[in-house]
Amino acid sequence: MNNELYSSLLESILLEIKPSKSDYERVREVCRKFTTAIEKKLAEKGVKDAEPRVEGSIAKDTWLKDDKDIDIFILFPKTYDREFVKKVGYEVAKEAALEVAGMYSEEYAEHPYVSTNYEGFKVEIVPGYKISFGEKVLTAVDRTPLHTAYVNSKLSPVQKDQVRLLKKFLKGIGVYGAEIKVRGFSGYLTELLIAYYGDFLSVLKASQTWKPFKTVIDVESKLSSEEKVKAIKKYKTPLIVIDPVDPNRNVASALSIDSFAEFRYAAYMFLIKPSRKFFFGDGINVSVSELANLIESRESSIIGVETDCPQVPEDILWGELYKSLKRIKNLLLSFDFNVIGHNVWCNGERVVFVLELERDTITSVKKHEGPPVGSANEIDFLLKHLNNPRDFSLPFSENGKWYVYMRRKYTRAHDLLRDRLLNCGLSKDVREAISKNLHILNKTELLERAKKNRDFRIFLFKWLTKYRPWVYDSRGECK
Amino acid sequence: MNNELYSSLLESILLEIKPSKSDYERVREVCRKFTTAIEKKLAEKGVKDAEPRVEGSIAKDTWLKDDKDIDIFILFPKTYDREFVKKVGYEVAKEAALEVAGMYSEEYAEHPYVSTNYEGFKVEIVPGYKISFGEKVLTAVDRTPLHTAYVNSKLSPVQKDQVRLLKKFLKGIGVYGAEIKVRGFSGYLTELLIAYYGDFLSVLKASQTWKPFKTVIDVESKLSSEEKVKAIKKYKTPLIVIDPVDPNRNVASALSIDSFAEFRYAAYMFLIKPSRKFFFGDGINVSVSELANLIESRESSIIGVETDCPQVPEDILWGELYKSLKRIKNLLLSFDFNVIGHNVWCNGERVVFVLELERDTITSVKKHEGPPVGSANEIDFLLKHLNNPRDFSLPFSENGKWYVYMRRKYTRAHDLLRDRLLNCGLSKDVREAISKNLHILNKTELLERAKKNRDFRIFLFKWLTKYRPWVYDSRGECK
Repeated sequence: MNNELYSSLLESILLEIKPSKSDYERVREVCRKFTTAIEKKLAEKGVKDAEPRVEGSIAKDTWLKDDKDIDIFILFPKTYDREFVKKVGYEVAKEAALEVAGMYSEEYAEHPYVSTNYEGFKVEIVPGYKISFGEKVLTAVDRTPLHTAYVNSKLSPVQKDQVRLLKKFLKGIGVYGAEIKVRGFSGYLTELLIAYYGDFLSVLKASQTWKPFKTVIDVESKLSSEEKVKAIKKYKTPLIVIDPVDPNRNVASALSIDSFAEFRYAAYMFLIKPSRKFFFGDGINVSVSELANLIESRESSIIGVETDCPQVPEDILWGELYKSLKRIKNLLLSFDFNVIGHNVWCNGERVVFVLELERDTITSVKKHEGPPVGSANEIDFLLKHLNNPRDFSLPFSENGKWYVYMRRKYTRAHDLLRDRLLNCGLSKDVREAISKNLHILNKTELLERAKKNRDFRIFLFKWLTKYRPWVYDSRGECK
Repeated sequence: MNNELYSSLLESILLEIKPSKSDYERVREVCRKFTTAIEKKLAEKGVKDAEPRVEGSIAKDTWLKDDKDIDIFILFPKTYDREFVKKVGYEVAKEAALEVAGMYSEEYAEHPYVSTNYEGFKVEIVPGYKISFGEKVLTAVDRTPLHTAYVNSKLSPVQKDQVRLLKKFLKGIGVYGAEIKVRGFSGYLTELLIAYYGDFLSVLKASQTWKPFKTVIDVESKLSSEEKVKAIKKYKTPLIVIDPVDPNRNVASALSIDSFAEFRYAAYMFLIKPSRKFFFGDGINVSVSELANLIESRESSIIGVETDCPQVPEDILWGELYKSLKRIKNLLLSFDFNVIGHNVWCNGERVVFVLELERDTITSVKKHEGPPVGSANEIDFLLKHLNNPRDFSLPFSENGKWYVYMRRKYTRAHDLLRDRLLNCGLSKDVREAISKNLHILNKTELLERAKKNRDFRIFLFKWLTKYRPWVYDSRGECK
């Protein structure tokens, strides 16, 4: 594809994703309502030198039309005591939210902050300190205004549109966001990539040269080559992006190797064959019979572990879900069930861990490996298996190693899960949920769930086929 | 067990295995007939300075009552031409065998020699050169008379009985003989172990201190410690025994690590709990239903590959059988059939390769591992699996490595064997036999064969259970 065709595709996408005049007006109006309320509450408490400030993608003008997130900070001078900022800041935020939106909920990062919903927007009000470039941050959120200032000083309006394209691309391929569920690219990281490489296409091209765990992007060229080597050793992340407002911070610290790989894969494919589908998907739907046929043809076994969704903050939830998933997988593996796929689905109410096994029923007999012939623990092994009712054979040597045919404790995955799930190291809240409510689902039961729930059905299909709308024109080719 | 009980057990065993006066007389008589005939034939050909000589265990008086092997060498002075010895030696041997036994068969080691059967004995007549200690051997067999002389000079009559005990013990546990089928302890090796350690029990005790691939037994203490280190590097066998008549030769070169392990295992058990069973077994019998139950309870799959036995010399046959067995095993493994056991049975007429698989039917879907994310061949992998009809999914990254769900070519072991057995690198004669006559046997067919053939039935039982009579009092404990 030549450059003109690229530009016309990207321009048409930009037209769809860039906020319109009325979008801008609406957001401005909402922000104004909150900042006015905050100012009022500050004044009521006699705080004259603190102020509300809109931050995030709206302040940087890198937001997408469909973005519904507004971040408002309440910035105090550094002369204020931490406890005061924490307490009074939170009260002001709470009262302002109640006044404007009539509701609030308490969130917690390093300090408590307030989240509320208003006219379709999710508004977060966060107290913090006002600091300047180079000053030490007092709380983790204090860096945000510096990021805003940095991005606004670096990016031209044209480049901010390039940020929008890259954000939408990352969303389209499923790797946008630094939260644990995604472990992808944060908004600030996206902005820095455009600042460094210039535009959307240049970032895609550059990604093909990135060496995992070896690439350091130093936007402000502040590091010497020795410091870059040190950064590689220090961060051990697939990509290292030095924060221009704090050279001791890696902006890409949340990015997983798999999100990194997915981005490079998608970028490679886009550069070969660009399409809207990278940005918008293709509105996939999957019928129950299509899913059933797919599962049938694989001849594998799929097991679901279903329980209630713990009601904890999003990042904690996904940390727990992934940890628990890994433990369930390891439990099955350690008893010789060959897990060839694993994933977890959650809609906020229910959780289903899904595991694809080559077989859910395995043989009684297991060829169990012992120590090498002539090793120190040889005799222990021989004596242990001298008269063991669990064994199908005596020990035997094969190419210099001892083995024995043992009887497996579990030959059915269902039995193993039923007996040992609660003691396999699940995370606290998941364990509690499972101890109260557990369904171990077989193939038929999973398909029943998939029949009732379209989202779950598409989840299963994508999990099994690793379907990406941007690879195939018709997904018939994918099976 | 105290030493007295040991001695009474060993004495009673010795009584059973030591040749009686009439055994000696009978052997002497048979030997005399052949040596007389050889002398006559040599004289007829005008060869005055060559002579027949009884060698092997009979010459060394280390033979067992039930030994039916007699070795007779025809020794020529070194002045004779090699071609002459080969030609005339073979003719003399052949004519003598015909005269005494009325039949002969041609065997071949380095030179052709003659084998015949007479009055229940297997008599081998081998031409060679008469050499003295320290002289260079001209043919491989020339060393044998030196071994005879060495053993006779070293071992007392009491020690020769200890050799008999050790030989019988090695036979009883299945590791006597240097031939490829066994890869165990040769007669000469057995004699040297008694010469070095003194008696039967001392060899058993010493074996517990042997470190595989690191123990050098230097009967005549001819090697310096540096030379011993060199010998370890040179031979790479589980046990190294320097030949006292040729320090550049390792008498234990044929011993496999598994026979080595088996001997140490049996020796350990004997020292704990001595019994006749180590020497004589326990006359095991196995019913078809017992075997069928055993197979059923393991829940695995057993497959037989049956063909005609190639009519080639014993050592070549077993070399081919083991090589072919390994290739069949590797064929199955390379297509993801998990082979947990393999063995081959042959009665001289039929051959059955047996393979125990966890499953003989596996799933269509396979989680296939690709290159690491960011490696040079990443793109090749992604493009190869872009639109591959054999795939169940697109590629995906998991912990930094690419994978894809592929469709397996073979999901039934039977189909794989039917299609690919002839092209998996079988040995020449086995391949030829299989190309003419092949039965792939399922569990039922194997049990049919086992019903008709007691030897095959016991073979299957021992293979599956690794049954040793000397471990269990009743084999009920073994299942």
